[in-house]
Amino acid sequence: MTLPRVVVIGAGFAGLKAVKGLADLPCEVALFDKHNYHLFQPLLYQVATAALSPADIAYPIRRIFRNQQNVIVSMVRVDRIDLKRNFIAIEKSIVGYDYLVIAAGATHSYFGRDDWEQSAPGLKSIDDATAIRKRMLMAFEEAEHEADPDSRRAKLTFIVVGGGPTGVEMAGALREIAAQDIPRDFRSIDTVNTRIILLQGGDRLLPAMHPDLSERARKDLEAMGVEVRVNARVTEIDDRGVNIGAERIECQNVIWAAGVQAAQLTRSLGVPLDKAGRVLVDPDLSIPNFPNAFVVGDAASIIDSRTHLPVPGLAPAAMQMGKFVAEIIHDEILVGHAIERPKFKYRDKGVMATIGKAKAVADLRGWRFGGVFAWLAWSLIHVMFLISHRSRIFVMAGWIWDYVSTSREARLITGPVRARLSRPALYVESEGASTTPKS
Amino acid sequence: MTLPRVVVIGAGFAGLKAVKGLADLPCEVALFDKHNYHLFQPLLYQVATAALSPADIAYPIRRIFRNQQNVIVSMVRVDRIDLKRNFIAIEKSIVGYDYLVIAAGATHSYFGRDDWEQSAPGLKSIDDATAIRKRMLMAFEEAEHEADPDSRRAKLTFIVVGGGPTGVEMAGALREIAAQDIPRDFRSIDTVNTRIILLQGGDRLLPAMHPDLSERARKDLEAMGVEVRVNARVTEIDDRGVNIGAERIECQNVIWAAGVQAAQLTRSLGVPLDKAGRVLVDPDLSIPNFPNAFVVGDAASIIDSRTHLPVPGLAPAAMQMGKFVAEIIHDEILVGHAIERPKFKYRDKGVMATIGKAKAVADLRGWRFGGVFAWLAWSLIHVMFLISHRSRIFVMAGWIWDYVSTSREARLITGPVRARLSRPALYVESEGASTTPKS
Repeated sequence: MTLPRVVVIGAGFAGLKAVKGLADLPCEVALFDKHNYHLFQPLLYQVATAALSPADIAYPIRRIFRNQQNVIVSMVRVDRIDLKRNFIAIEKSIVGYDYLVIAAGATHSYFGRDDWEQSAPGLKSIDDATAIRKRMLMAFEEAEHEADPDSRRAKLTFIVVGGGPTGVEMAGALREIAAQDIPRDFRSIDTVNTRIILLQGGDRLLPAMHPDLSERARKDLEAMGVEVRVNARVTEIDDRGVNIGAERIECQNVIWAAGVQAAQLTRSLGVPLDKAGRVLVDPDLSIPNFPNAFVVGDAASIIDSRTHLPVPGLAPAAMQMGKFVAEIIHDEILVGHAIERPKFKYRDKGVMATIGKAKAVADLRGWRFGGVFAWLAWSLIHVMFLISHRSRIFVMAGWIWDYVSTSREARLITGPVRARLSRPALYVESEGASTTPKS
Repeated sequence: MTLPRVVVIGAGFAGLKAVKGLADLPCEVALFDKHNYHLFQPLLYQVATAALSPADIAYPIRRIFRNQQNVIVSMVRVDRIDLKRNFIAIEKSIVGYDYLVIAAGATHSYFGRDDWEQSAPGLKSIDDATAIRKRMLMAFEEAEHEADPDSRRAKLTFIVVGGGPTGVEMAGALREIAAQDIPRDFRSIDTVNTRIILLQGGDRLLPAMHPDLSERARKDLEAMGVEVRVNARVTEIDDRGVNIGAERIECQNVIWAAGVQAAQLTRSLGVPLDKAGRVLVDPDLSIPNFPNAFVVGDAASIIDSRTHLPVPGLAPAAMQMGKFVAEIIHDEILVGHAIERPKFKYRDKGVMATIGKAKAVADLRGWRFGGVFAWLAWSLIHVMFLISHRSRIFVMAGWIWDYVSTSREARLITGPVRARLSRPALYVESEGASTTPKS
């Protein structure tokens, strides 16, 4: 007897929950992901800002399912999906399915200006994070050697585009590095000449939260020294700076935290998508007319049947969707035929964003607070949801260590480097030193 | 008054000790390194084999000298040295010096067969280590998908060339991964079909140790399942395998741990070098005829004046050399003129190599032992010499954790991946599954 086969694409929060929900079911679960690890995206900005190592927040997928015998993990990128004929295509092979769960996640969106990506990288993968970390650290190394004051100022100006949680967290963390680590370790860079600018297109930060918390986040960031600009729509980005309408800011470090879109794979489905490329799913999260194919997580677009609000692109929503779909598949496989399906209801647990050391904001179903308690709550919740005990213990211990020592020690520049040094730092420091060789 | 300037090239063990030895001296110390971190090379193989993260064994150089005010750190590659005119050249700039300390370290040597590097990467930098880690993990991912048994066998064959400490440690660690982690996490790879082969050109492993320990290491490795081959001279390496004289082993994963040579920079000096490119220094570690220029660490070639043996390329020797040279410079700067210099004497503290969990060999000045005590001694000594308290605590805690859990969790494949998958793993596992789509 051939077991029914469930294909799951993507091992993010949604995909993992879907696969776990099918444990002990007489079926064959095939999980595909282009990476060999599950990534805890909410802490990715801490890798980009040298507080954590990649292995702290990424965990081998195969390790997660070591003991779930009905799962086969493949590290491979799915090229195409044929909903009508029930198969997915991978290079020259195809894999048929009885049920399909698309949990392919999201990537950056530059709102039609993909040429900005080169100058303004986004933060979605481990490689993105280590690239941003390298770029940031190289900016300080280059500034230390830079003689021209304008060029030096541009190297020490960091612009974060986007005032959602990722943008707020990046800006706060950058400011902490610039204020705490860099002036102590460099001889010619001080806190004053590093600028961190956070640009938000809308009229307040953290638009998913209550306006009081938006205001609190702005004040906290400004007190730390971040320049927060609302109603600031970026009109151009290039290698040397950013335009906001008629205004130009010279800057060599731009980080994009403004827009997301569903993974490219949804384009191959031939079904209606929203503007961000997300699949407009039915209330049971299946694709209209394809009841055996579901979309969960950031790739799904759905209005909650209870609140009539869009379900947000957050980890808790993704996990709930994965679990919900697994239950439907579970029940149908057990009874052997289609059943009447429930509608997905998002249980909103709230939203949080950290701003800096002992500073965060939390909006937990009407219970709104900021400061050190929000930060402790944020830390505990994030550590709790890490996938392994080892990560939980080591991330928590690392945070405590860094809190006490006020230092970030994962400041490694790895991969090929092309430094643009105008002169050895030596001459910046020692004004009296001759530039001709000593004899 | 212009302070005397000491230029130090390289922030390895020797360079760090040299710079530290000049603290509190009225001089300007300019430290150049192409990386922004000091690397604890003895544990690099643990990054390559997914036991540690890069940040565990690499530490920002600027952080090390945060409180040593007379040091200026530059992350830059030195292009050329002009000993006659007392300057170093960096791109278009030059930096003059009163004293020069060359601590540029060593790189791989392929004994004239640089074309082997592509197929048989060596292990000297963080990027080398993450590249080897990726290659090793991808071999298992690809093998899981491979239908052809010969190709599968080649993907699951790992050859380590070189039976010194690095080769022994790599082979042992690879065997542990292959025996412990892989079979539990993959569905179609078992301990039996992964081969780890350690090739040694000479007649015994660990030639720097007593023959009894060589024998012990060989027995321990063989008991773990490593195939140890002595008197095995590699005559050819390509993408598909290795030749040992007339014998051919098909293999897609070769790691080079056989030869080292001094960093390229020594070639620019125009002074006599040994076969490995190391500078033949005077007994005071200065370059003959250039008393203000020293070479320390792996780039120096010297016969110990007491034992009449070559000083080995080990971390303790490098540290002793750095300290020795700093003392000479220190004294000369303080008295203001050249002094009679002592001869460098290497204090041999012994050699150790780890083989696997609770297995190592130690040869400490005639006190020779193996097994769990050697392994504990090895662990403690390596942790002790790590550069930061944070690394010490986290590396030690990580080892204890992994010892208890028998798992390596830094198994991340990062950077661009070009998988060569012959078919989805699905079909390896489910013999009965049809390769045509289900309807």
